[in-house]
Amino acid sequence: MSLDRNAPIGVFDSGVGGLTVVREIMRNLPGERIVYFGDTARVPYGSKSKATVLRYSRQIVRFLKTQEVKAIVVACNTASALALDTIETEVELPILGVVKPGASVAVHTTRNKRVGVIATESTIHSHLYRTLIQAEDPEITVLGKACPLFVPLVEEGWTKDPITREVARRYLRELLEKDIDTLIMGCTHYPLLRSLLRDIVGEQVTLVNPAYETAQVLKRMLSDTGLENPGGSGEKYRFYTSDAAENFDAFARSILPGRVPAAEQIPIEEY
Amino acid sequence: MSLDRNAPIGVFDSGVGGLTVVREIMRNLPGERIVYFGDTARVPYGSKSKATVLRYSRQIVRFLKTQEVKAIVVACNTASALALDTIETEVELPILGVVKPGASVAVHTTRNKRVGVIATESTIHSHLYRTLIQAEDPEITVLGKACPLFVPLVEEGWTKDPITREVARRYLRELLEKDIDTLIMGCTHYPLLRSLLRDIVGEQVTLVNPAYETAQVLKRMLSDTGLENPGGSGEKYRFYTSDAAENFDAFARSILPGRVPAAEQIPIEEY
Repeated sequence: MSLDRNAPIGVFDSGVGGLTVVREIMRNLPGERIVYFGDTARVPYGSKSKATVLRYSRQIVRFLKTQEVKAIVVACNTASALALDTIETEVELPILGVVKPGASVAVHTTRNKRVGVIATESTIHSHLYRTLIQAEDPEITVLGKACPLFVPLVEEGWTKDPITREVARRYLRELLEKDIDTLIMGCTHYPLLRSLLRDIVGEQVTLVNPAYETAQVLKRMLSDTGLENPGGSGEKYRFYTSDAAENFDAFARSILPGRVPAAEQIPIEEY
Repeated sequence: MSLDRNAPIGVFDSGVGGLTVVREIMRNLPGERIVYFGDTARVPYGSKSKATVLRYSRQIVRFLKTQEVKAIVVACNTASALALDTIETEVELPILGVVKPGASVAVHTTRNKRVGVIATESTIHSHLYRTLIQAEDPEITVLGKACPLFVPLVEEGWTKDPITREVARRYLRELLEKDIDTLIMGCTHYPLLRSLLRDIVGEQVTLVNPAYETAQVLKRMLSDTGLENPGGSGEKYRFYTSDAAENFDAFARSILPGRVPAAEQIPIEEY
């Protein structure tokens, strides 16, 4: 199959969190066009089963293919952990999740071979970060902790709040007692808590942001395959949601640079 | 249409929260059979739009009708606030939400005519509690406050935790400053925070639990229409979910009395 270099990159997430990945792609690949889909009618994925997340992800991939994307980024850690292994065998396009880029960087960052992962319930239970890290270096101990309150705290806007600090202290206590030197922020909302997490873990722990790492891997992949956008015509950024778009637009404008076009709602169940 | 008195009552919710309504029906109408559906694949509803919650509710009502229920209880405050007015014009069965019973009791409870409502974003924005209360007594002031962190805090199991107490103190501050004497717990999870809420609001504020009031209204309705179950054959309680049932079963067994049968997953999108 011959892919159009000028085609957009398809990016999807369970909701608004994947916009942190979009932000990194915009910063690091400014020539690329993006079509984003946020599954706001069925968000969150982090507490749902593998079969359900896979069914939803397949519908979204079918939608993105109608948008003639040249590659797909699964910007949701939960979908990357639960659905990507199956979807990549079914789609002829280059497809990339956020878990593997985050795991690879952690392997090279840790010095004491003790890596912490904070993520949703479903991502932690999948053990995919551990599996990928130990495939590269079996001597690394990977300690996971589900942090289900972080997403609602971020969505409440309490990113620098004493309550959030206390929640984070409790969630991270065990990982810090076990002397991790690297912490993967394994859910797209968590980089929005970066400064608060930094205060709690201290300067000696490296924070890994899979969104940033994914943009770097995407950049190399497009370059290696000759798919970099040479700069041309076409709408630069388009946003789609499965629920009403108003709340999405407000959040998107608060975290993305530049002019953000209004999102359009589509009936994802029909794909 | 002639309804079978021995038929079960259909109860639905966005997820597990409606089990607090089931608990009240079990306690107050011990002769009734129940078919419960929890939309765990699309939970929560509280941040979603009216159109989406209506579409989901219609699918669930269609499913419950295949179970030959004699009446339907919308155990979700958000669905009651956003979808019930439409659904009740479309269904020939007796159908009952949780908002109206809660609103009616608050009208008769308040002495200073200042009622507070805590609920999800979507329920608060619907203003339905206010509309129903002021339809009965226009002199009552109704003060609403969305509490989006309460559901995840309950699901984390932190119902008696200092962090939850601090969150509740912040959410309730404004309502208490405005001197409410009645507080409606307008989301099915909130009665699980009752003792913590009681500590914060003090003895002078009456806590209204719409789940309990709904069971009372259901009891009168079945009695008035001759639909009370005379006691007979048929499985007593059945539980269905849209996502994998394991987590649901654990929660159900933690809050319901007696033996709770395992839930069965059904493809709700196909209804």
